[in-house]
Amino acid sequence: MLIRCGYDIRFETDEPTAMMALLSIHPSRHHDLQTPQRLMADPDVPLYQFEDGFGNVATRLTIPRGGVTLSCDFTIADSGELDRRAPAGPQMPVEDLPDAVMPFLLGSRYCETDRLMDVAWSNFGYISDARERVEAIVHFVHNHIEFGYHHARSDKTAWNAYQERRGVCRDFAHLAVTLCRCMNIPARYCTGYLGDIGIPPVDAPMDFSAWFDVYVAGDWFTYDARHNQPRIGRILMARGRDATDVALTTAFGRTTLARFDVHTDEVNQID
Amino acid sequence: MLIRCGYDIRFETDEPTAMMALLSIHPSRHHDLQTPQRLMADPDVPLYQFEDGFGNVATRLTIPRGGVTLSCDFTIADSGELDRRAPAGPQMPVEDLPDAVMPFLLGSRYCETDRLMDVAWSNFGYISDARERVEAIVHFVHNHIEFGYHHARSDKTAWNAYQERRGVCRDFAHLAVTLCRCMNIPARYCTGYLGDIGIPPVDAPMDFSAWFDVYVAGDWFTYDARHNQPRIGRILMARGRDATDVALTTAFGRTTLARFDVHTDEVNQID
Amino acid sequence: MLIRCGYDIRFETDEPTAMMALLSIHPSRHHDLQTPQRLMADPDVPLYQFEDGFGNVATRLTIPRGGVTLSCDFTIADSGELDRRAPAGPQMPVEDLPDAVMPFLLGSRYCETDRLMDVAWSNFGYISDARERVEAIVHFVHNHIEFGYHHARSDKTAWNAYQERRGVCRDFAHLAVTLCRCMNIPARYCTGYLGDIGIPPVDAPMDFSAWFDVYVAGDWFTYDARHNQPRIGRILMARGRDATDVALTTAFGRTTLARFDVHTDEVNQID
Amino acid sequence: MLIRCGYDIRFETDEPTAMMALLSIHPSRHHDLQTPQRLMADPDVPLYQFEDGFGNVATRLTIPRGGVTLSCDFTIADSGELDRRAPAGPQMPVEDLPDAVMPFLLGSRYCETDRLMDVAWSNFGYISDARERVEAIVHFVHNHIEFGYHHARSDKTAWNAYQERRGVCRDFAHLAVTLCRCMNIPARYCTGYLGDIGIPPVDAPMDFSAWFDVYVAGDWFTYDARHNQPRIGRILMARGRDATDVALTTAFGRTTLARFDVHTDEVNQID
Repeated sequence: MLIRCGYDIRFETDEPTAMMALLSIHPSRHHDLQTPQRLMADPDVPLYQFEDGFGNVATRLTIPRGGVTLSCDFTIADSGELDRRAPAGPQMPVEDLPDAVMPFLLGSRYCETDRLMDVAWSNFGYISDARERVEAIVHFVHNHIEFGYHHARSDKTAWNAYQERRGVCRDFAHLAVTLCRCMNIPARYCTGYLGDIGIPPVDAPMDFSAWFDVYVAGDWFTYDARHNQPRIGRILMARGRDATDVALTTAFGRTTLARFDVHTDEVNQID
Repeated sequence: MLIRCGYDIRFETDEPTAMMALLSIHPSRHHDLQTPQRLMADPDVPLYQFEDGFGNVATRLTIPRGGVTLSCDFTIADSGELDRRAPAGPQMPVEDLPDAVMPFLLGSRYCETDRLMDVAWSNFGYISDARERVEAIVHFVHNHIEFGYHHARSDKTAWNAYQERRGVCRDFAHLAVTLCRCMNIPARYCTGYLGDIGIPPVDAPMDFSAWFDVYVAGDWFTYDARHNQPRIGRILMARGRDATDVALTTAFGRTTLARFDVHTDEVNQID
Repeated sequence: MLIRCGYDIRFETDEPTAMMALLSIHPSRHHDLQTPQRLMADPDVPLYQFEDGFGNVATRLTIPRGGVTLSCDFTIADSGELDRRAPAGPQMPVEDLPDAVMPFLLGSRYCETDRLMDVAWSNFGYISDARERVEAIVHFVHNHIEFGYHHARSDKTAWNAYQERRGVCRDFAHLAVTLCRCMNIPARYCTGYLGDIGIPPVDAPMDFSAWFDVYVAGDWFTYDARHNQPRIGRILMARGRDATDVALTTAFGRTTLARFDVHTDEVNQID
Repeated sequence: MLIRCGYDIRFETDEPTAMMALLSIHPSRHHDLQTPQRLMADPDVPLYQFEDGFGNVATRLTIPRGGVTLSCDFTIADSGELDRRAPAGPQMPVEDLPDAVMPFLLGSRYCETDRLMDVAWSNFGYISDARERVEAIVHFVHNHIEFGYHHARSDKTAWNAYQERRGVCRDFAHLAVTLCRCMNIPARYCTGYLGDIGIPPVDAPMDFSAWFDVYVAGDWFTYDARHNQPRIGRILMARGRDATDVALTTAFGRTTLARFDVHTDEVNQID
């Protein structure tokens, strides 16, 4: 399957403002590129990429006085397969987990494992199978939180989302991630493109999406508490401990988002 | 100067429990070791070290049923000099900061930069010199929080400490780190040994200490909002975004701390 | 299966001499440790470990005037299974190889890919199946080189071994690694313990062993051109581009090896 | 000072051929970019960047049947200052060197430290000052090798260059690097742009250049055995153990270089 992805985003600012952006696809998808993924800026300011501590491709630039438009458009190959479910079977003991996944058991800015420990164990402590536990958490979060774009708040944490019971895809992911970590299942927060592929048309503007991965039986598996069903065509951009690590853009100063268009569509051929 | 450091810590548990510990000195101090730093366990369970994502030496072990005593004792050379103050001069623009320090501008579990942004800018926005700004933050935090061991709480954040105005060295460090980050000064949380060297005797049991580093003028400088004065003889163990990353021990199950002795003393010779 | 491994090695020197050693097991085997792997030095000089650029555990120490004895003894669990053969099937195109394996296609100190390119293609160019190609290389090297301890020479390269047709396990590995790389199959050089387990008794003093890994069908597989047969009980210590990267010890000055005992035996229980 | 750099290189091939290229500036120079450094390909095939194990930016692409032209053109700021000389003073003992520089003491494909050890010690063993030793090596290599483009050979090592006494800038760098390593001075091989800035005009087509860094007194310093004098305006692209690690392009199949233009000129303004 071929998917055409990209964005057209404009920031405005009164003063030159430093920005860090995670607007590139994840290196694990580089081999799937069918056309170059070339980040364009207008005006054509210098920008450069570096690999952050989580293996994501970050971009740094300074938004010039007035503003800048960042855009990108590329075609990528995808398996066209649904997210794989984690295998059934007993959960890995913590002592068998690889060193590199250990940070994904700890708390983070939006994932207060310390505060949700009791909620997690009282709800999911009785389940011993790893897949069942993860899927029970996904199901719980999906039903516990009411989705609504107007519920978005930049400082909302998993604990807040649990209590307020309202949120956006980011909050679904944070709560599910936190509950998995409480149960000693490593979990990481993911962002990327997720088009309306293999599902009925959705009447909402396209946006980037947030989901999460769990580490079960020696591998990472993707789950989505917002949609609560396997999906086709996720194009991963970045992953980290939570939305702090993988914010699409972090501006170090005052900026206004003046345009935000994202596209992710199945296509038949490379234009 | 020679400093003899070490600890003797006992955990008890009913079930074998996985543990991750940051009880080794930081690699940047390895060259100063005058005797081996050998972590002993009783009973002598297998344990191993790995380097975490922040360059710290982490230890993994499984506490056996009953419990385990971890101990260490070594002698290390130290310059005997006071913490260096950051140089005076204008603050580095964010765009000039190296990529590797950027994560230390972001929020983290105990450092809610989003919530303290207004506090930071209204108090320190008028200062342009980087050293003055950092030292004003240290001074402010030192005076804002009342120290008391009974104020320790494992889920207390910088925001909580700011509001409750009570805490321990960890809370002083979290609040100062958060305020620095809000002002676009990269800051990282540190733990280690800090003996009563070069100061009047202190009538309190020795403990590990928490302080923080700021990135100013192209280098990291150590500050301590708890003590609000330069000190001699810090032996760094671990540094990270906040106490989550550098917890002395993280147990993945129920354990009881049955003994906790730390020593850090100036000595005249290697025994 | 339980295997008891260790060594007792003595270096003598007239002057304090810096040393770097790769005498620890590889982190990928840490989870298998049944007893601590504690490196002892006599006299008890300070030494410390760090992770090198290939993920191996390196030790640094200064050999004191007179000399030092390094020793270690531990018990480790092993699957007891033979080395897995690479799967049959077409070789991965270079463009599909992960970025991280690319260095293992390049030349290195003892693996002159540039000089052996023609030898490789004329001998193995006709084979398209990856497993067949690797196994043909292993077979060729096994038969091309005559084994003999007295053929060891510290500056012998793959090219030298190819021409001289004599060598030790290190030379078998270097030549096989080089030929694989010439054929665009990533290959890395490995060292570790390899006891006489599952084979008839061997009448030679135990030593560390060298073998190599190839990257086929998305994973690494172990081969051994010296023995030309799958073996049981390899305990990996270090891997890299060639013997330069994983030298057991590198002394930065004049030292004499005064004792060298290695043990690797199957045992029934932990002592 | 502003420098305009870039290249226009064409490879031709009969079959699609995987390529790895180190044609981007080094991340340490990213902050100096005044215009974007955008690698263009014609035809516009997918290509992507990754950070290699030495911190360089590598590019991977597949050259399509027929061929591809790679080009780049950007303006970068430079201090305009001459290479800094290493400070005078005693050489750092190996035991005080940071772990991360240790690999730059070892042999590598084109730097046979084992073969040149005697040459190094007999010529430079009497010098104890680190700067004097490095500069004596640079001077020696500069005078020992006769420069000539027709002396270039892709498999020529430091040992070969020492014996043949002919070579190109790569060979000067390899021999100097090897001799420094033999003397326990960490040395790394560098490639990049070096225009005819601050020197009389040179009547030769512009090419990329090779030089090297030594680690003295806790920092890296740049030397150039080809020119044997400090220069202005080096724009680093990549550094590693030797030319293997930082080859401008490595093709995994047969390709022909059909065009090779490099430019590096001081300019007064950004176009």
